[in-house]
Amino acid sequence: MLPGIFWIVPIAGVCTIVFAVFLTRNVLKRPTGTPKMKEIGDIIFQGAWAFLKRQYSTIAMYSLAIAIIIGVLVGVLGGTEVEGLSPLEIGWRTGVAFLVGAFCSGLAGFIGMFIAVKSNVRCAAAAQKSLTEAVNVALRGGAVSGFLITALSLIGVTAIFFAYGGNSNPNIAPYLIVGFGFGASFVALFAQLGGGIYTKAADVGADLVGKVESGIPEDDPRNPAVIADLVGDNVGDCAGRGADLFESTAAENIGAMILGIAAYLVTENVAWILFPLCVRGFGMFASMIGLLCVRAKESENAMNALNRGYFVSIALSIVGLFVTVWFMLVTDQHGVIHTDYLWLFGAGIIGIIASVVIVFVTQYYTEARYKPVREIAEASKTGPATNIIMGISVGFSTTFATALIIGVALLVSYWMGGQSGVHGAGAFGTAVATMGMLMTCPYVLSMDTFGPITDNANGINEMAGAGPEIRRITDRLDAVGNTTKALTKGYAMVSAGLAAFLLFQAYIDRVNFLRPDNPLLTVDISRIEVFVGALLAAMIVYLFSAWAIKAVGKTASKIIEEVRRQFREDPEILNPKDPAHPHVPDYGKAVDITTRAGLREMIAPGLLPVLGPIVIGVVFRYLPGGYDAAMVVAAVLMVGTIAGIMLASFMNNGGGAWDNAKKMIEDGQLKDDKGNVLGKNSLAHQAAVVGDTVGDPLKDTAGPSLHVLVKLLATITLVMCPLFIATT
Amino acid sequence: MLPGIFWIVPIAGVCTIVFAVFLTRNVLKRPTGTPKMKEIGDIIFQGAWAFLKRQYSTIAMYSLAIAIIIGVLVGVLGGTEVEGLSPLEIGWRTGVAFLVGAFCSGLAGFIGMFIAVKSNVRCAAAAQKSLTEAVNVALRGGAVSGFLITALSLIGVTAIFFAYGGNSNPNIAPYLIVGFGFGASFVALFAQLGGGIYTKAADVGADLVGKVESGIPEDDPRNPAVIADLVGDNVGDCAGRGADLFESTAAENIGAMILGIAAYLVTENVAWILFPLCVRGFGMFASMIGLLCVRAKESENAMNALNRGYFVSIALSIVGLFVTVWFMLVTDQHGVIHTDYLWLFGAGIIGIIASVVIVFVTQYYTEARYKPVREIAEASKTGPATNIIMGISVGFSTTFATALIIGVALLVSYWMGGQSGVHGAGAFGTAVATMGMLMTCPYVLSMDTFGPITDNANGINEMAGAGPEIRRITDRLDAVGNTTKALTKGYAMVSAGLAAFLLFQAYIDRVNFLRPDNPLLTVDISRIEVFVGALLAAMIVYLFSAWAIKAVGKTASKIIEEVRRQFREDPEILNPKDPAHPHVPDYGKAVDITTRAGLREMIAPGLLPVLGPIVIGVVFRYLPGGYDAAMVVAAVLMVGTIAGIMLASFMNNGGGAWDNAKKMIEDGQLKDDKGNVLGKNSLAHQAAVVGDTVGDPLKDTAGPSLHVLVKLLATITLVMCPLFIATT
Repeated sequence: MLPGIFWIVPIAGVCTIVFAVFLTRNVLKRPTGTPKMKEIGDIIFQGAWAFLKRQYSTIAMYSLAIAIIIGVLVGVLGGTEVEGLSPLEIGWRTGVAFLVGAFCSGLAGFIGMFIAVKSNVRCAAAAQKSLTEAVNVALRGGAVSGFLITALSLIGVTAIFFAYGGNSNPNIAPYLIVGFGFGASFVALFAQLGGGIYTKAADVGADLVGKVESGIPEDDPRNPAVIADLVGDNVGDCAGRGADLFESTAAENIGAMILGIAAYLVTENVAWILFPLCVRGFGMFASMIGLLCVRAKESENAMNALNRGYFVSIALSIVGLFVTVWFMLVTDQHGVIHTDYLWLFGAGIIGIIASVVIVFVTQYYTEARYKPVREIAEASKTGPATNIIMGISVGFSTTFATALIIGVALLVSYWMGGQSGVHGAGAFGTAVATMGMLMTCPYVLSMDTFGPITDNANGINEMAGAGPEIRRITDRLDAVGNTTKALTKGYAMVSAGLAAFLLFQAYIDRVNFLRPDNPLLTVDISRIEVFVGALLAAMIVYLFSAWAIKAVGKTASKIIEEVRRQFREDPEILNPKDPAHPHVPDYGKAVDITTRAGLREMIAPGLLPVLGPIVIGVVFRYLPGGYDAAMVVAAVLMVGTIAGIMLASFMNNGGGAWDNAKKMIEDGQLKDDKGNVLGKNSLAHQAAVVGDTVGDPLKDTAGPSLHVLVKLLATITLVMCPLFIATT
Repeated sequence: MLPGIFWIVPIAGVCTIVFAVFLTRNVLKRPTGTPKMKEIGDIIFQGAWAFLKRQYSTIAMYSLAIAIIIGVLVGVLGGTEVEGLSPLEIGWRTGVAFLVGAFCSGLAGFIGMFIAVKSNVRCAAAAQKSLTEAVNVALRGGAVSGFLITALSLIGVTAIFFAYGGNSNPNIAPYLIVGFGFGASFVALFAQLGGGIYTKAADVGADLVGKVESGIPEDDPRNPAVIADLVGDNVGDCAGRGADLFESTAAENIGAMILGIAAYLVTENVAWILFPLCVRGFGMFASMIGLLCVRAKESENAMNALNRGYFVSIALSIVGLFVTVWFMLVTDQHGVIHTDYLWLFGAGIIGIIASVVIVFVTQYYTEARYKPVREIAEASKTGPATNIIMGISVGFSTTFATALIIGVALLVSYWMGGQSGVHGAGAFGTAVATMGMLMTCPYVLSMDTFGPITDNANGINEMAGAGPEIRRITDRLDAVGNTTKALTKGYAMVSAGLAAFLLFQAYIDRVNFLRPDNPLLTVDISRIEVFVGALLAAMIVYLFSAWAIKAVGKTASKIIEEVRRQFREDPEILNPKDPAHPHVPDYGKAVDITTRAGLREMIAPGLLPVLGPIVIGVVFRYLPGGYDAAMVVAAVLMVGTIAGIMLASFMNNGGGAWDNAKKMIEDGQLKDDKGNVLGKNSLAHQAAVVGDTVGDPLKDTAGPSLHVLVKLLATITLVMCPLFIATT
């Protein structure tokens, strides 16, 4: 018997889709500006579409192979029978769940990219009217993908839960749908990685040959790589981040449902398992209303308007959280009230607080108003080397706040979970905290997609030769977009940290479900094999980052060669004899080359975190010495998570700080000893450009991919754990 | 009753000292070259002496304070009585042991620096005769400190062991002398950190104003910071590394002795506890003979001569290891032979193999002959940004080899330890592996000190205006020195990794010794507080590195200001009107400023890893929630070790690769598409100089300090563990 409050889930799902359709129509009916602008918009759309089509063909092939492999492995090696289901039946169900998850994740990426590209040109056109209009277009365009993606995740998990017998066997179904989470994170990793490589390679390549070698401005139409650069923002930031947050919400939902099983088995109240879905449903409404409250004023910083909407979402989320906790947990199926469970409301609040704190901390580390960015700008005076040294130092020191926020939030929410006396105790507390944090996910994702839309709008206006007045508007929006992008990364990182604990627990629960005679009671890192596994996990995180960064460099060098070739073979591209009819560079060729190289370079780093844990687990299972491979893999998961979060904190925040140090100098905010402004093209600025370029692949390729990697470690170990368990 | 073979320890101690005195006399009696060279040598000596005097005064104050605090804390909170000793008695003994360790560590640093500085000028003079002579001086000068430092460690540990009742209570004494290891690593951290900050700040500062701003060559006498730069090599590489390896050998000795207690208690054979000391004794002789075998030929790469000596030491170490295992472990005190214990010989061999493998791997990652450095040099063609990106990628990917070597060596030596059936089982196997690896430590340390001596000799020749012929010799030696320095870092890093496990076990043994009613059987990282502790430990590693790197930047900016001031106030320094009588810059002022700034900046990062684990442990002890603080601290130690080794691998190898990519371009080994050499002062070279400068504080300040930090975590937790144990 489903609790009545569960209706919030389908209602939220339907309402969100209606809302997204309304927003889409609202955006699409707006003018696309001059024919020139429309033309540029169409070129970007085609480039992005071509990339995604090829990227997802590649990913689809790999997904199919992995689905079959998983199905067979789980089917053959699964061992233990689950009530009424043979290993073979579990196997094919896991494989199918994987494919469905992979498909939904891919769909999420497509949607994100599609609407963003359509919104770019309309945002550019709206900027010709007013700032308010431009903000509206960018935010609504961003919201379409933000809301559709989270709705897809909610509907997908719910649908597959019931399809796999959630109504009759709610304690079994969550284990069967872990494949969905794995599929989602598998695709998300490749989407984020491929998109990240593409976007930064195009960015670095376009800048190095354009700005540095040929001295033409950013987004200049004479640069053959300029379209590839604009395409990159869409495939990296929109499609990549969309797939990332899709899998985050999906994986964490499933993990939280698994944790609820313990309480369900004792209380027979299915609300414990369905709770995460309902919380998300309320979060959808909170985000929707928050978004509708955004009213930008012409005179103010657009960030303030976005912040107001965010705080409305937060406030409504708290209300929704309370309602869910009260009616699902505090009040049991017989109407008896257990006030102790109100502690879980407290745990959820902790998650929400963490999401607010990280927003401010990220701003501190990455905005020009505060000390870290100013120090990097100061260090630029003595050249690129000191700029880089200071940036590395700032990036490293951001781990302090990241670790402290995650650590405190975990401890307190765990403690509250324990106080509530719920079955599954503390870990369920961290699950509620994670759910609380993720309630505003649709809103945050809308803000995030705001970034690439304004960035593209800015580029389109530059290419279409818009006047300085209009460019000033899109420039301002672009700066806001940089901040929202940085915030989302902080949000994704802390949510990965918070979720870590519930995912560990889900893994351990599954091992014990499959191995009830020899349960995994501790993950003892003082055992040699466990310590070595942990060491290797940390190494995988570094090696993955090394490959991801290098992939950007390799892809960029291909673009650089192509741009140089075009400039060499047709000098009129750069210096037209007849300025009214300049030779147009071959944008398509540059897009094509980036696409090919980016996709080729994505394979090796993408497979590393998929195969790494499996190889470690299987090797330790068969190595003589009586090692407990399941425990080793648990350590891989846990220490890999720590290493991943720390390195991501360095890369995301360090990269953001470098970027804004450069922007700060361009804004004329840096002065020498005598008070002269050191602005654009000063030596300090050139040094800051180097820092920004170094930060690019860190913050937009490796860093965000590490969030996905951390979640992927969780889903892959969860799905593959039958492989690590020795048959007795 | 001491076993007869134990005589090797005092004999080795005495012989080593005699050997060092012989070498010292041999070096000191050599000519110091022209009066100009002698004068420069004297200035360097005075600068280094002034720095060390001040540095060690600061460190002495802190040491005294810490000794008292430890004594009181252990005395008051110690709780459990040890057979016949009250907590108070344990307290003051620990404090005194700390002071003795601190004093010896300081002495080791002083010796290293003293002889190195004296050898510099003599090496410079010898280069005027022949390469062979120069190699002899540099290697013998380096050997004095290498051998005296390791002898001091061996004698110190042995002496305090017997002073604290090792003869009557060999199972108690090792616990009482852990303070010695803590004292040694405490001083080593500050020595390495302060020296590292000094040397790189001077280097970066001198280069930025000299080479980049004023266009004068490296080591030009007109640069006011040039002496500070030369002083830096001595206080950073000689004094710092000396203190580092002193504490490594001391801490690992003590840890290994603690592990031997388990076997002693069962067999009543004290050889199990004394074994580590005797192995080290044989290692001394092996290294001595290896060193005497070095005969450089005029025509060959000096590195080959050094390698020959190293392999002789390795071969003799294997023999010595076998003798020790056979007579101390395989043959028991009653003359009965236990062939199973031969497995421990195998474990020792694993350690020796690991030390050889890391040498080759380090060469692969940091020498211009191989792909990684070549890729960085290639990336320099497109500017500093791509150079840095590629360098970060290479640095990150070196963690693969580091983790694999440590992981495999740990697993295999642990497995062999288990096969031997020794009490304490596998962990004792890793201890023997560590001891095997450290046998050649005196030789490796001699090679390491070879580096700064040749570097200084090169600088002295440049300043004294030696001819190009002579400079070519010292230039070649300088390149060899860079390689040996990189190798030593790899050696120190892998030894830290290998030793990690024996030090963990020593910590757990001590906890259980103090808390026999509630032993620490697992370190369960799936417990929330343990996971959070691990997360914080990884953070401490990053934050420490951030502060260390920033300290270099801050100190360098002080030097830059000073050099600019001197150039501004006396233009004749740079452009003398009368070239025969140029105005001499005020070297002393630059040295003085670097000294002050460097010492001030050393305090915060130095205290972080000392206070961090204590604060974490004490907070968790008193936090409500029933946390096991001792277990949390164990996780801090273990995951801190993993994080430290990974980050050090990135910084040391990445920095070395950047350095040699620059050197490779300077050697004319980089060509453009058309086959033209891109040599000195090309754009690629300028980009590579940026990379080298970025790498400097990573590889010479933060990276080497991280080895010490890892060991310090072990000794501090070992000494402070009474604080983390709740009194029941």
